[in-house]
Amino acid sequence: MQLSTKHLIGIKELSKEDISLILTTATQFKEVLQRPVKKVPSLRDVTIVNLFYENSTRTRISFELAQKRLGADTINFSASASSVSKGETLLDTVHNILSMKVDMVVMRHQASGAAHFLSQHLPNTAIVNAGDGTNEHPTQALLDAFSIQEKLGTLQGKKIVLVGDIMHSRVALSNIYLLKKMGADVMVAGPPTLIPKYIEQALGVQVCYNLQEALQWCDVANVLRIQLERQKKVLFSTLREYNLSYGVTQKVLNSLQKEIVIMHPGPINRGVEINSDVADGPYSIILNQVENGVAVRMAALYLLASPQ
Amino acid sequence: MQLSTKHLIGIKELSKEDISLILTTATQFKEVLQRPVKKVPSLRDVTIVNLFYENSTRTRISFELAQKRLGADTINFSASASSVSKGETLLDTVHNILSMKVDMVVMRHQASGAAHFLSQHLPNTAIVNAGDGTNEHPTQALLDAFSIQEKLGTLQGKKIVLVGDIMHSRVALSNIYLLKKMGADVMVAGPPTLIPKYIEQALGVQVCYNLQEALQWCDVANVLRIQLERQKKVLFSTLREYNLSYGVTQKVLNSLQKEIVIMHPGPINRGVEINSDVADGPYSIILNQVENGVAVRMAALYLLASPQ
Amino acid sequence: MQLSTKHLIGIKELSKEDISLILTTATQFKEVLQRPVKKVPSLRDVTIVNLFYENSTRTRISFELAQKRLGADTINFSASASSVSKGETLLDTVHNILSMKVDMVVMRHQASGAAHFLSQHLPNTAIVNAGDGTNEHPTQALLDAFSIQEKLGTLQGKKIVLVGDIMHSRVALSNIYLLKKMGADVMVAGPPTLIPKYIEQALGVQVCYNLQEALQWCDVANVLRIQLERQKKVLFSTLREYNLSYGVTQKVLNSLQKEIVIMHPGPINRGVEINSDVADGPYSIILNQVENGVAVRMAALYLLASPQ
Repeated sequence: MQLSTKHLIGIKELSKEDISLILTTATQFKEVLQRPVKKVPSLRDVTIVNLFYENSTRTRISFELAQKRLGADTINFSASASSVSKGETLLDTVHNILSMKVDMVVMRHQASGAAHFLSQHLPNTAIVNAGDGTNEHPTQALLDAFSIQEKLGTLQGKKIVLVGDIMHSRVALSNIYLLKKMGADVMVAGPPTLIPKYIEQALGVQVCYNLQEALQWCDVANVLRIQLERQKKVLFSTLREYNLSYGVTQKVLNSLQKEIVIMHPGPINRGVEINSDVADGPYSIILNQVENGVAVRMAALYLLASPQ
Repeated sequence: MQLSTKHLIGIKELSKEDISLILTTATQFKEVLQRPVKKVPSLRDVTIVNLFYENSTRTRISFELAQKRLGADTINFSASASSVSKGETLLDTVHNILSMKVDMVVMRHQASGAAHFLSQHLPNTAIVNAGDGTNEHPTQALLDAFSIQEKLGTLQGKKIVLVGDIMHSRVALSNIYLLKKMGADVMVAGPPTLIPKYIEQALGVQVCYNLQEALQWCDVANVLRIQLERQKKVLFSTLREYNLSYGVTQKVLNSLQKEIVIMHPGPINRGVEINSDVADGPYSIILNQVENGVAVRMAALYLLASPQ
Repeated sequence: MQLSTKHLIGIKELSKEDISLILTTATQFKEVLQRPVKKVPSLRDVTIVNLFYENSTRTRISFELAQKRLGADTINFSASASSVSKGETLLDTVHNILSMKVDMVVMRHQASGAAHFLSQHLPNTAIVNAGDGTNEHPTQALLDAFSIQEKLGTLQGKKIVLVGDIMHSRVALSNIYLLKKMGADVMVAGPPTLIPKYIEQALGVQVCYNLQEALQWCDVANVLRIQLERQKKVLFSTLREYNLSYGVTQKVLNSLQKEIVIMHPGPINRGVEINSDVADGPYSIILNQVENGVAVRMAALYLLASPQ
């Protein structure tokens, strides 16, 4: 089985079969990660450059771990140490890296569309999008889907609500694309200022401005970070007020007539979009998401490195 | 033989047997480092993340070398590229890293107690303190002890003076704990403003405000860095005046009726706490300390990775 | 065959035989890089520290790739994370790194002569200059020479013009030394303010202030970056005016009665010293230079690591 694409730019470009293949392959790699020896030599002769133009602890470490456990050679580059300031174009930078016989580039970039742009100009090399602006973060959506499937057995027919800052979130967009393709029902919930207009029609999701109603509806709540650093304007009054209206607290969960699964892509702003009693509580699968991230990234890298 | 602890947080928590075990094991690894092939596969399936929230050339390189020579997989993370600015807590960051099935975290942090805090919340994983605020720097004290033992045969009964900025020095505190446990006599020497009050009673060391007297008393002088970047207030008038009163110079050494061993944990401020003629002179074992650091860190990592 | 030197500080110190040996060895490594498995275990037990006090995407990645493909262990250190701010001298930093039993140091530094200084004080360890101030960048000149030889068969008797900012360019100086030693004819072309006085007599090159005349004369044009970040004073009016007078454009190339080879060390300022139609055009070997850089650096590191 092979992916229908040479790149992993966004969930939007993947078929349902691609997604299933990645998730199935990830199941096998998750088994590898339970062993004392967590390494397989699948990518022994593959060289991967991690090009991070935005900071990220967890995503960069997760990708690097996935690469090392597949036996790949990895080279890291972060923006502060790059030649960005020297005025070279992004395309030149990546073109040059690939000329050095690098097999794959994993890139995080602040510009939406950066990964897509590269893939158009570099058709023969695998470009993996590790987050581009407010567009997509495909491996996050894949690990979220893997974690839901692991917990609930399937995505088909499950009700998932994405809570919070939908407007600025690449995690939300990638999740919506993926969950819809896999047959889940998707709702977005949050203050009107943080939810794009016309999102129902555009993406086929429900919208709810009341947290409790949204949680009562769903099987799974994926609570997004308040991306303070990405908001140009003040879109809600204070973090304290945000927490009072849209923060997921144990008190809100207790008021529901059901149990729901709690997810968060991290990093968590404790006491803002989620309280510690929930994040660390029995319904949270937040650390499972982190663990699954390595397996899902191993699967994606492995499939992209295979000849097509 | 095994350590009595899963972590290496401070010398304070180590028993005399733990210290002896690390030093003995380091002797074996030092032999490995003399060979043309300096690598052993002891930690071949172990993954270690180096999490440095403070800059450090030598300590980070020394740990990374130790890890690579044990065959471990290493991942580096420094503060500037971390998600610190995104507001995640330290505990969340480390918890997430460990969820990715990382076996060990080596951490340097500006907050005293940071490593201890982590070890309390993450009891099952090895946390190695590579320096926390003004508290402890255990591997530095271990390599200092190894270097003294190598030079003088034993620590028992030897007279060691720590010279300089005792107040702000985690190296001083770790050295005092270790040397006392191993039966050495310890003196601290420096200007009254840089020596904590009641240190005699609290830690069982002698205090001396006169450099020449201190040097005349000792077998070994461990000259500490003036930690300019860590001093909130001006605690002495000028660097030139500090050098005149407490700088270890060849002239001072010549005035003694004996030979003493000269140590320094680095990085050296030449012409401030120590002059070049002494640092590069025949009694200096400063570069031996650096060399021994790799062997001592190999020993500590090896012992912590062994099942207990 | 062996190099006559333990270090690679500058082309100035290499003999013609040294240069030929590196280029011949690079040919063999280039063959390795065409294979599916691009690694050889030549430096399996060698540890190399890359010490970059100036940012560089391509040079650092190229060196790291070369090292990994030779099987060496690599440790990276960049200035922002170094102890520079702690006031340690460069010599102490490198001395300490070497005390840890590191076999080789690859260094980029903003100060001209930094690598030479180290090699004088550390005669027994290989120091590789990856660019020092406005002095030399020897591996760049070697990869440029390799690329010309690959394209034209030989350097002997070929006419090469270096275009642009000769004054501030370590690439220019290393190229001039190398090309003259290998029997090429060398011209420098650019505005008078960017060409050092007396360079004809000092280095035996021709000088031309007219771009079209220079291009008409040459077989190869190596177009240098306008090093905006390295110019203390404004040495030409605007980038637009520079491009009009000295930018290599397709229009200028079309006006020649011949075909010439186009080179650029990167990173390119498109629309300043070179236009995109030329950089991406049929006579450009710019990406070949990048590819050859890995093979040439493998050759240099391999030869320096061999016992002499």
